[in-house]
Amino acid sequence: MSTKPSKELEVVPNPHPDRDYEVRIECPEFTALCPKTGQPDFAVIYFRYIPGPWIVELKSLKLYLWSFRDEGHFHEDVTNRILKDFVTAAQPRWLEVIGEFNVRGGIYTTVRAVYQDPGWTPDPSVAQSLVAPAWPRRRSG
Amino acid sequence: MSTKPSKELEVVPNPHPDRDYEVRIECPEFTALCPKTGQPDFAVIYFRYIPGPWIVELKSLKLYLWSFRDEGHFHEDVTNRILKDFVTAAQPRWLEVIGEFNVRGGIYTTVRAVYQDPGWTPDPSVAQSLVAPAWPRRRSG
Amino acid sequence: MSTKPSKELEVVPNPHPDRDYEVRIECPEFTALCPKTGQPDFAVIYFRYIPGPWIVELKSLKLYLWSFRDEGHFHEDVTNRILKDFVTAAQPRWLEVIGEFNVRGGIYTTVRAVYQDPGWTPDPSVAQSLVAPAWPRRRSG
Amino acid sequence: MSTKPSKELEVVPNPHPDRDYEVRIECPEFTALCPKTGQPDFAVIYFRYIPGPWIVELKSLKLYLWSFRDEGHFHEDVTNRILKDFVTAAQPRWLEVIGEFNVRGGIYTTVRAVYQDPGWTPDPSVAQSLVAPAWPRRRSG
Amino acid sequence: MSTKPSKELEVVPNPHPDRDYEVRIECPEFTALCPKTGQPDFAVIYFRYIPGPWIVELKSLKLYLWSFRDEGHFHEDVTNRILKDFVTAAQPRWLEVIGEFNVRGGIYTTVRAVYQDPGWTPDPSVAQSLVAPAWPRRRSG
Amino acid sequence: MSTKPSKELEVVPNPHPDRDYEVRIECPEFTALCPKTGQPDFAVIYFRYIPGPWIVELKSLKLYLWSFRDEGHFHEDVTNRILKDFVTAAQPRWLEVIGEFNVRGGIYTTVRAVYQDPGWTPDPSVAQSLVAPAWPRRRSG
Amino acid sequence: MSTKPSKELEVVPNPHPDRDYEVRIECPEFTALCPKTGQPDFAVIYFRYIPGPWIVELKSLKLYLWSFRDEGHFHEDVTNRILKDFVTAAQPRWLEVIGEFNVRGGIYTTVRAVYQDPGWTPDPSVAQSLVAPAWPRRRSG
Amino acid sequence: MSTKPSKELEVVPNPHPDRDYEVRIECPEFTALCPKTGQPDFAVIYFRYIPGPWIVELKSLKLYLWSFRDEGHFHEDVTNRILKDFVTAAQPRWLEVIGEFNVRGGIYTTVRAVYQDPGWTPDPSVAQSLVAPAWPRRRSG
Amino acid sequence: MSTKPSKELEVVPNPHPDRDYEVRIECPEFTALCPKTGQPDFAVIYFRYIPGPWIVELKSLKLYLWSFRDEGHFHEDVTNRILKDFVTAAQPRWLEVIGEFNVRGGIYTTVRAVYQDPGWTPDPSVAQSLVAPAWPRRRSG
Amino acid sequence: MSTKPSKELEVVPNPHPDRDYEVRIECPEFTALCPKTGQPDFAVIYFRYIPGPWIVELKSLKLYLWSFRDEGHFHEDVTNRILKDFVTAAQPRWLEVIGEFNVRGGIYTTVRAVYQDPGWTPDPSVAQSLVAPAWPRRRSG
Ligand SMILES: [Ca+2]
Ligand SMILES: [Ca+2]
Ligand SMILES: [Ca+2]
Ligand SMILES: [Ca+2]
Ligand SMILES: [Ca+2]
Ligand SMILES: [Ca+2]
Ligand SMILES: [Ca+2]
Ligand SMILES: [Ca+2]
Ligand SMILES: [Ca+2]
Ligand SMILES: [Ca+2]
Ligand SMILES: [Ca+2]
Ligand SMILES: [Ca+2]
Ligand SMILES: [Ca+2]
Ligand SMILES: [Ca+2]
Ligand SMILES: [Ca+2]
Ligand SMILES: [Ca+2]
Repeated sequence: MSTKPSKELEVVPNPHPDRDYEVRIECPEFTALCPKTGQPDFAVIYFRYIPGPWIVELKSLKLYLWSFRDEGHFHEDVTNRILKDFVTAAQPRWLEVIGEFNVRGGIYTTVRAVYQDPGWTPDPSVAQSLVAPAWPRRRSG
Repeated sequence: MSTKPSKELEVVPNPHPDRDYEVRIECPEFTALCPKTGQPDFAVIYFRYIPGPWIVELKSLKLYLWSFRDEGHFHEDVTNRILKDFVTAAQPRWLEVIGEFNVRGGIYTTVRAVYQDPGWTPDPSVAQSLVAPAWPRRRSG
Repeated sequence: MSTKPSKELEVVPNPHPDRDYEVRIECPEFTALCPKTGQPDFAVIYFRYIPGPWIVELKSLKLYLWSFRDEGHFHEDVTNRILKDFVTAAQPRWLEVIGEFNVRGGIYTTVRAVYQDPGWTPDPSVAQSLVAPAWPRRRSG
Repeated sequence: MSTKPSKELEVVPNPHPDRDYEVRIECPEFTALCPKTGQPDFAVIYFRYIPGPWIVELKSLKLYLWSFRDEGHFHEDVTNRILKDFVTAAQPRWLEVIGEFNVRGGIYTTVRAVYQDPGWTPDPSVAQSLVAPAWPRRRSG
Repeated sequence: MSTKPSKELEVVPNPHPDRDYEVRIECPEFTALCPKTGQPDFAVIYFRYIPGPWIVELKSLKLYLWSFRDEGHFHEDVTNRILKDFVTAAQPRWLEVIGEFNVRGGIYTTVRAVYQDPGWTPDPSVAQSLVAPAWPRRRSG
Repeated sequence: MSTKPSKELEVVPNPHPDRDYEVRIECPEFTALCPKTGQPDFAVIYFRYIPGPWIVELKSLKLYLWSFRDEGHFHEDVTNRILKDFVTAAQPRWLEVIGEFNVRGGIYTTVRAVYQDPGWTPDPSVAQSLVAPAWPRRRSG
Repeated sequence: MSTKPSKELEVVPNPHPDRDYEVRIECPEFTALCPKTGQPDFAVIYFRYIPGPWIVELKSLKLYLWSFRDEGHFHEDVTNRILKDFVTAAQPRWLEVIGEFNVRGGIYTTVRAVYQDPGWTPDPSVAQSLVAPAWPRRRSG
Repeated sequence: MSTKPSKELEVVPNPHPDRDYEVRIECPEFTALCPKTGQPDFAVIYFRYIPGPWIVELKSLKLYLWSFRDEGHFHEDVTNRILKDFVTAAQPRWLEVIGEFNVRGGIYTTVRAVYQDPGWTPDPSVAQSLVAPAWPRRRSG
Repeated sequence: MSTKPSKELEVVPNPHPDRDYEVRIECPEFTALCPKTGQPDFAVIYFRYIPGPWIVELKSLKLYLWSFRDEGHFHEDVTNRILKDFVTAAQPRWLEVIGEFNVRGGIYTTVRAVYQDPGWTPDPSVAQSLVAPAWPRRRSG
Repeated sequence: MSTKPSKELEVVPNPHPDRDYEVRIECPEFTALCPKTGQPDFAVIYFRYIPGPWIVELKSLKLYLWSFRDEGHFHEDVTNRILKDFVTAAQPRWLEVIGEFNVRGGIYTTVRAVYQDPGWTPDPSVAQSLVAPAWPRRRSG
């Protein structure tokens, strides 16, 4: 695997596809550019997913997030794009992506998007867990 | 866009209207006047919403909140008014507004109001999230 | 309004009676006497309610809580009495009162009582919020 | 009332038997002996209950917990025994007992047991509260 | 009982098999090797279970976790393996295992797997507790 | 000893007068009246002292602080008065009193006063400790 | 005393001028305008002083800080100006003013200025306290 | 070594007697009896020392602290007695003992005592460390 | 002023050059590249300085830190380089720069460098503050 | 550089040998074996040093700490040994090593050792920093 930024998210086979288990991944080192001003933006990206046939390779995830470093993105849009890229690559049964962006103009913005495979019914043991949103703590006030 | 206080909340098109996703916004720099004494009041205003056709432009939201700086408002009333203004401007599918006011007379007051578009049914992936109130932490005791 | 302790809780009209919204009030300065020993007891009193025709005037609430300063009260009893007085004065749709008492004999006691107007059905947007108890954090251990 | 350790839990009449209200009690000063090694063990015991005909007298509860000081007990067993003794003495509608034991061998153990009066249906205002377990925060990691 | 690493998890009879009670165990001293690099990995392993016929002997659990010290394991896999070993040894009615792994490459990973005995229906007093995932707090951001 | 408020601070002989050791006492249950408005004020009173011939009896200290309950006092003044009363009663070698008053008008006030016996030279082992003020944490901001 | 913003800081006689004692005051509700953009700025202003002939009247201090609400000020400048105004009004033996400004452009700024009466020598009991800066906690990172 | 309570503190040779290094030991499981009421008291005992010829064996320290379980002791006295016992057994160059006692009557008491070998001059690298008291955090307020 | 990354640090005249006052600046959005791997590194940069003839313009400081975004730098080196650039631009009387770098390989690194104008003697009111290092809190363990 | 455990600590030239600057390194992933029982021990190792001719290469430091994984070590001894190895390899002007060991038998142990080059005089800007011990926070109580 290279050590260059890449929009390719690599995956490996899910070692326990018989079970609906959850994986939570926190990535505090996301940075992109503001599409209006061109200045750097910073965020923590949180993933929580139930693997389908694949699990995401972590080094590849790091390179994927690195690939946004020189691109301009709006908060609401980029969070949904990351969700879509992850779904395409890993075909999870369920996925939550949260983008927690650094304060701008005295305002703290966080975006949460969720995907659920329409052909999948969650095992009862995780069904409640999925609908409970894993929001990070509030940061202001 | 000007840099003056304004009751006009500007919006831009929702880049992902096909999905019920959530946006959380924290504004710790709200100040208005007490209608009884004329003295300054301070609050943190928290928004959480599911965008409909529009998302709120953040610089505009800052100017909007600035517009209360020289006006007199009661806690319970202003929280509901902000909810209504946001609904009018952005037509969200769902919206929660929380006003967390600074202590007065040794008493801490927080107000929470919720709007749901009557013609909208939440996607199951967010339905539970919506009814779980995003209260800030208690501050006294 | 006077500045003396008073068992009279004053109210003002609810400015938004069309909506089921919540008000949370934290009062960390409650003190009464222990009915057994006559020594001072201290507590934080937390209110959370959905206003009906009235909202509680905060300065009056302060004077009301002050009125317990020279009275003897048991923890379980006084929390329920405050609930009843609030219901009588403000006729809320729903009310939660929590009394979090200071440690005595190495033991920390907290009491939670809830009232719901039997003729009222909560709006779906607040129904889940109501049944989720707003317990303060544990203090020992 | 004496000031000696006692397995007798004293109770007084519930002042508000018409209402399903909750009482939370935290006791950070529990100590017993390890049945294997004879060395002291320490725990925080948490109670949460809905009173039936009686409420527990707090000084008596302190003497009751003191009575374990020179006895040998296993974690899982003693938590359930305390639950049973409390049920016998106070006949609560509902009771949760949590024993949070100090670290041993690098491992932190916590035990939670719940009792519900089979002939009692919880009032809707507390029903959700009861099933939400009041776990203390994690301590390791 | 020896004091050597062992894949054998020892159990003792459940002293209260008549009740669905929960046991939470936190083990902050888990270490294994990375299967790719051979370098040490560290994690906190959290267990929560409802005992069936047996409860797990804690010293044995410590020796069991020690047995991974010189083995190579992937995060997602080892968490599920620990779940399976525990189920085999203790036959719990319900079990949750969470592996909270130390940061690698700026990324924090946590894995949660759940087992429920297919022939068992949870007592209503614990049913809600089981489906509420006991995630540890977020560590980044 | 009575259980009534009393301005008499009782003392007992210092069991280790040969050593300059420190005693820290925190009293979170202080309340008096505001001399301007007559309304209740609340504070935490912190003591730190090096005993001389006497140490303060703790139950007596509680009754002493209780004696302020129905009296009017300014923040700066009452902190210094408590210092003087303690010096008169216990003749400490050194004493620090801190009054940390609850917020009023959005402003948090804390007062710190120190006494040192002019005929006493601190042992080098405590000399640095004495001049390092034991301020409580900031509460606002 | 009026309830209007005022640059006049009122004082009352120091009740204990014989002693070098410290007063700490925290004011989390400071707001002014940015001289460049005209937009609101927010800060916490912390005072710590040793009174000379006067102590500052707290309601007057609130009105004084209110007087900056509609004025444009730079961070470094306004902190020093507040120091000078306080010195002129209250003639303290020693004064520290800290302005902790809200984040702007992703950067957190705090300014600390100190005054000492050139004709005054601190009592040894406070000398060390004075030179230990009472910085608030860091907020970023 | 036995596993019974013992007033004998065992020591082993200091492996690095050529250096003035510090050892900090925290013992949160101290319990004794109140000499007035006979009821259990609880404390955390903190040690910090510079070893002389010996270092304290930790299992022995545990048995030593256990030996107070059935004895009556006053706070100020027992902290100094532990200091003296430690000095006798281990002959440290320097020792600090802090007893942080659980709240009684709403009052939190902490006692700090220090010993320094009169024939020893601290190495400059630790001299400042020694005079900086290692107080635990405040617990009330 | 442009909005592009720039190694030019702009300054404005110190509005209070007659006084030795301190300015603390926290910049949590620093990122550069690892000179070995080319992968992104992240840090918080903390400044604390006593202005000489100039104070640093904050927007310019942001652009200056941005200029490292595409450059490779070692932790120890870049912290000292930032110190030198700041000294050259602003000629402060005293300056502390702390670089708190994100975890790499399970290891957390922080670098602190200090400059003092050799021709300057600090005012006694700040002399102690300067030598007390403003370390951020530890992050691991 | 290999990726195997190694007692060889590699160094690189100090890029700023003209300045006395500090480097703080936190390593939460230290594990060794207890020399008595053979069971695993865990610790956080903290370094703080002023580089002389060399700075420590971080990947090498990781391999160095890894080399203790299968060795038996006492707490007091291993902390001093790590200090000595670091001094031999990097020849720092000053070095502090703190070993914060996980709880054993209910007791938390931390060891701090310091080295100073006898032929070096610290620059005044760091002299005070060096003697202020960088203890981690207490963990019990
Ligand atoms: Ca399934
Ligand atoms: Ca939908
Ligand atoms: Ca309705
Ligand atoms: Ca009922
Ligand atoms: Ca950790
Ligand atoms: Ca059952
Ligand atoms: Ca951060
Ligand atoms: Ca002496
Ligand atoms: Ca704030
Ligand atoms: Ca003087
Ligand atoms: Ca020496
Ligand atoms: Ca409090
Ligand atoms: Ca000067
Ligand atoms: Ca830890
Ligand atoms: Ca030098
Ligand atoms: Ca504790």
